[in-house]
Amino acid sequence: MSIDTTIVSVTTIEQIGQYAGQKVRLRGWLDTMRSSGKIRFLKLRDGTGRIQGVLTKNDAGEELFERTGHLGQESSLIVEGEVREDARAPGGYELLVSGVEIVHNAEGYPITPKDHGTDFLMDHRHLWIRSQRQHAILRVRAQVMRSISDWLDNHGFLRIDTPILTPSACEGTTTLFETKYFESSAFLSQSGQLYNEATAMAFGKVYAFGPTFRAEKSKTRRHLMEFWMVEPEMAFVDMWENMEIQEQMVSYVVQQCLQHRRRELELLERDLSKLEKIVPPFPRIHYDEAVQILRDKGVEFEWGGDFGGTDETVVSEQFDRPVFVHHFPAAVKAFYMKPDPDRPETVLGADLLAPEGYGEVIGGGQRLDDLALLEQRIAEHQLPTEAYAWYVDLRRYGSVPHSGFGLGVERTVTWVCGIEHVRETIAFPRTLYRLYP
Amino acid sequence: MSIDTTIVSVTTIEQIGQYAGQKVRLRGWLDTMRSSGKIRFLKLRDGTGRIQGVLTKNDAGEELFERTGHLGQESSLIVEGEVREDARAPGGYELLVSGVEIVHNAEGYPITPKDHGTDFLMDHRHLWIRSQRQHAILRVRAQVMRSISDWLDNHGFLRIDTPILTPSACEGTTTLFETKYFESSAFLSQSGQLYNEATAMAFGKVYAFGPTFRAEKSKTRRHLMEFWMVEPEMAFVDMWENMEIQEQMVSYVVQQCLQHRRRELELLERDLSKLEKIVPPFPRIHYDEAVQILRDKGVEFEWGGDFGGTDETVVSEQFDRPVFVHHFPAAVKAFYMKPDPDRPETVLGADLLAPEGYGEVIGGGQRLDDLALLEQRIAEHQLPTEAYAWYVDLRRYGSVPHSGFGLGVERTVTWVCGIEHVRETIAFPRTLYRLYP
Repeated sequence: MSIDTTIVSVTTIEQIGQYAGQKVRLRGWLDTMRSSGKIRFLKLRDGTGRIQGVLTKNDAGEELFERTGHLGQESSLIVEGEVREDARAPGGYELLVSGVEIVHNAEGYPITPKDHGTDFLMDHRHLWIRSQRQHAILRVRAQVMRSISDWLDNHGFLRIDTPILTPSACEGTTTLFETKYFESSAFLSQSGQLYNEATAMAFGKVYAFGPTFRAEKSKTRRHLMEFWMVEPEMAFVDMWENMEIQEQMVSYVVQQCLQHRRRELELLERDLSKLEKIVPPFPRIHYDEAVQILRDKGVEFEWGGDFGGTDETVVSEQFDRPVFVHHFPAAVKAFYMKPDPDRPETVLGADLLAPEGYGEVIGGGQRLDDLALLEQRIAEHQLPTEAYAWYVDLRRYGSVPHSGFGLGVERTVTWVCGIEHVRETIAFPRTLYRLYP
Repeated sequence: MSIDTTIVSVTTIEQIGQYAGQKVRLRGWLDTMRSSGKIRFLKLRDGTGRIQGVLTKNDAGEELFERTGHLGQESSLIVEGEVREDARAPGGYELLVSGVEIVHNAEGYPITPKDHGTDFLMDHRHLWIRSQRQHAILRVRAQVMRSISDWLDNHGFLRIDTPILTPSACEGTTTLFETKYFESSAFLSQSGQLYNEATAMAFGKVYAFGPTFRAEKSKTRRHLMEFWMVEPEMAFVDMWENMEIQEQMVSYVVQQCLQHRRRELELLERDLSKLEKIVPPFPRIHYDEAVQILRDKGVEFEWGGDFGGTDETVVSEQFDRPVFVHHFPAAVKAFYMKPDPDRPETVLGADLLAPEGYGEVIGGGQRLDDLALLEQRIAEHQLPTEAYAWYVDLRRYGSVPHSGFGLGVERTVTWVCGIEHVRETIAFPRTLYRLYP
């Protein structure tokens, strides 16, 4: 090993600016290397960033220079050197390498700088996440999740996790994963919402934040079988206040990403000016107006239908901010949505469509709070009365007007990153044909 | 309705101290009510706390006084009144009620102040969570989860969620929930650890934080079928540094609970002096020493065995802080644990046992980083080579020493709250015989 034994600070590439002019030690992996005569350029990554290390035969000595000549991509290294400011370097610094300890020399790393097909990359997802683009996307994802929790925790919401294993289905049974639960059967939750209604009656303002599951045979760029949702629920809140809360939260999340993940968004070549516009208030349009927009744009659309991905795109492209579409027809929405008293064929709910054609990121609304009407709906939908007995209880004992919403993490990250496909926004995506790695 | 139409601040019981001497409006539920002549005492809850409202016939008027006489427990109300400081009141304030709007009069609320059996309460879990004790426990839980994320986020860890639906088993297949995944089968994850090892190689320091599942036919007070785990994983960290990180994190979490959830802990009659002692360093004992302690205490225990709940209790009761037991026999630990080079029948791992007999809250250790040895272990354990191919890749391309751990949220909350049974620490527990509500 060529590391000298003097005391040298171990740091990370993200923190290296604090050590300009000093000697430090970095622990990481070799991204790429190119040599030119008596000088080698080692691009290192350590999980927090990337930096170029410069190794010259003169300074490093012949032995070290030779030994580093055969390092393969993704070899793990401990590198020592002096931190030098360099305005031309991507992070503003480079490292004058004086010592290299080879932890593990990797040979034949399968993901090379050349182009690979998506299937190949997805088969190697456990390695692909080391690449700069995937790294950036997953760091944005972590920021989105953190900012969501921060906003909710700072606005009086209590996190109460709802169960994944449930005895009954929230929205129909055809798209459920089922498992044996000892002597009975359980379904993987598609939404924590019904449980959130119980916890909102106990805690006022709550949110669940966890994975949800839909066994949908769809393979669009907006669908995953397993995805994360945050689902806030609030007692004494109507559909209008619900929307105000959503636009505040979504704007905060986007602005936090701009503040803390600007470098990642730039790497993804995101048009930041589009994100800077994401501030309240968001436009609100009635379903009737949305239908009119569709027709004006030449889409044949009959009043009463739900929006498909293309419809969402056409509507959302009319606005430079996310747009709420409210008062959907009751027939296309879940049984627990509260009908508008003035027009009971529509519900007091709203979807939030992201701009730039990213489609629905939130579904939300006011819930049915009347006991008799809820019981009627459960009967109409032929839901098993016994399984919903506890849910009905919430209207029996201190029912209050209440609202909530569910925001899909992966769709939000796709939009914030400005990328094509939702599958890159989660470490190990589960799609129709993919359960590996 | 008896609410006057002047502008009055809507607030919460938690925030009411800011309005001393002013008129406010609270929205919540009636916990209990007692009347004495021309005065009624209404104990209100709004999800953030509890307060006593005082309603006199003289001030409120005959009509309002009569109308509130028939309110059932858990009726939902909007109450207006003046905030009065009162040192004798539990929260320091009471409300001189001048108006009450009855949102919904609840009749026959099933959970009364009398004693109920556990099964009855668990059948009514959706309502039971409104009670003061459950409320306190779940608020401590939220604090524990928040503090874990805070500590990790502030120490350079990146949150990367790992999949729930997995093609292979992490630790044996007998205790797995299985589900059909279109044409193939999937198992609900028991741990995100293997995936964390992949993300740690990409991001350096990571954590997964989500639900995990074990179909174990055990019904002890420490087991749930569905529980939450936080699982940090770190590249270039050995077993000793791993323990330092754990004791820092655990101590931070406990101290944050003392700071932000003291009122809840007091309500649970937690001995706070025991929690105040939870500061680093935690004692570390070798498995050999732990076996000696067991024998000294009269427990028959053969070297080589794993600890049962009782063994954990006996060992942990010797210390006033959580204790690390390290170097367990390899035979009782998972295939991915790194053997001690000096004594390969033991592994470089440690469990953390909570004090006061609360048992294991963390399992962790250094992972096997040698390609040949890992392949040998996989063969010895007769694991499917193909399913683990991606995991083995991590030792092929830039392997580094790395460690991690998994902390169980519910066991930690049980200990922090000082309560008997893990089932109260999650909103909707899943036990051997319970999947409802």
